Amino acid sequence: MSVIDDLTTELARLPGIGRKTAQRLTYHLLRQPAAQSRRLAEALVALIERVRPCTRCHNLTEMPLCALCTDPRRDGTLVCVVEEASDIASIERAGEFRGRYHVLGGRLSPLDGVGPDDLAIASLLARIGTEGIAEVLLATNPSLEGEATALYVQRQLAPHPVRVTRIARGLPVGGDLEYADGVTIAQAIAARREM
Amino acid sequence: MSVIDDLTTELARLPGIGRKTAQRLTYHLLRQPAAQSRRLAEALVALIERVRPCTRCHNLTEMPLCALCTDPRRDGTLVCVVEEASDIASIERAGEFRGRYHVLGGRLSPLDGVGPDDLAIASLLARIGTEGIAEVLLATNPSLEGEATALYVQRQLAPHPVRVTRIARGLPVGGDLEYADGVTIAQAIAARREM
Repeated sequence: MSVIDDLTTELARLPGIGRKTAQRLTYHLLRQPAAQSRRLAEALVALIERVRPCTRCHNLTEMPLCALCTDPRRDGTLVCVVEEASDIASIERAGEFRGRYHVLGGRLSPLDGVGPDDLAIASLLARIGTEGIAEVLLATNPSLEGEATALYVQRQLAPHPVRVTRIARGLPVGGDLEYADGVTIAQAIAARREM
Repeated sequence: MSVIDDLTTELARLPGIGRKTAQRLTYHLLRQPAAQSRRLAEALVALIERVRPCTRCHNLTEMPLCALCTDPRRDGTLVCVVEEASDIASIERAGEFRGRYHVLGGRLSPLDGVGPDDLAIASLLARIGTEGIAEVLLATNPSLEGEATALYVQRQLAPHPVRVTRIARGLPVGGDLEYADGVTIAQAIAARREM
């Protein structure tokens, strides 16, 4: 097998990239200056070698503690619980949340063999006791498994003196009633607020 | 900037990959076993270091001459002219063509500053004289620029004792008249054949 086929095969393993796209990318990488393709390879190697989970919140970082855990301007009494480290980037982009995070490393999914012991729940409970956390905001996805995970974590937190909240569900901003599903509309109506 | 941002930026430079997809890919590369991500980086480095244009047809290869130029079962009297080396893979997939190839390295495009001297036309003319080529099949894309390129190459070949042909245009197999554009339908009618 040629190195062209090799790279095409490796690229086609990535999510959302089929065989044809992988081939197109390979030829693009061949056409562009070698220095540019080399930067991509080096960035990938640096990623593998240097990125580790934050020892406190499990966010991905190049340091023992991530930038969010060490930033003194972040509110340490408020912790947002997410499924994956990538969810932190989504929430940070919104610019609304000023607390810290805790990454579970997945969601409860019996069909995939993911149980409570596979998620970083024990380390969350340990943080409650030591960090003076006053509120835990559960920001797992509004999916069936995300809801089950939020419910499970909420029950584990119940004995602790901490407020537990859940991100709001409703119609997305800029969305359209015509294209919203019935469950979302029902949630949006149930969670209606005074104007 | 972190190495996560670095890789996301490099991935987002690839065609058809936006910022969000690049970020999703980065987190995927972080989640999967490091050995798997390392294989991708190594395949990319091998590609940059080992792949060169074939000295005869400009196909991409790891040898001085590509596998198609050295294969004795290929018909050396028939040469298919394509814009890019990636077009060879598309034609080979179809399994219909048994001749050899010649890669122009682009198409005539005055707006992008690509003129005849930027394409491998002189080396094609040189091959006509030395390789006993009887037919040149012009397989540049059926686009405006591809047609102009085919016409230009055809004129350069006119003084040479060689048959010049063009790939047929028409309705794609499995296509639907309802979704075909008018130009394609017009070409399909003009190029109609006896049944």
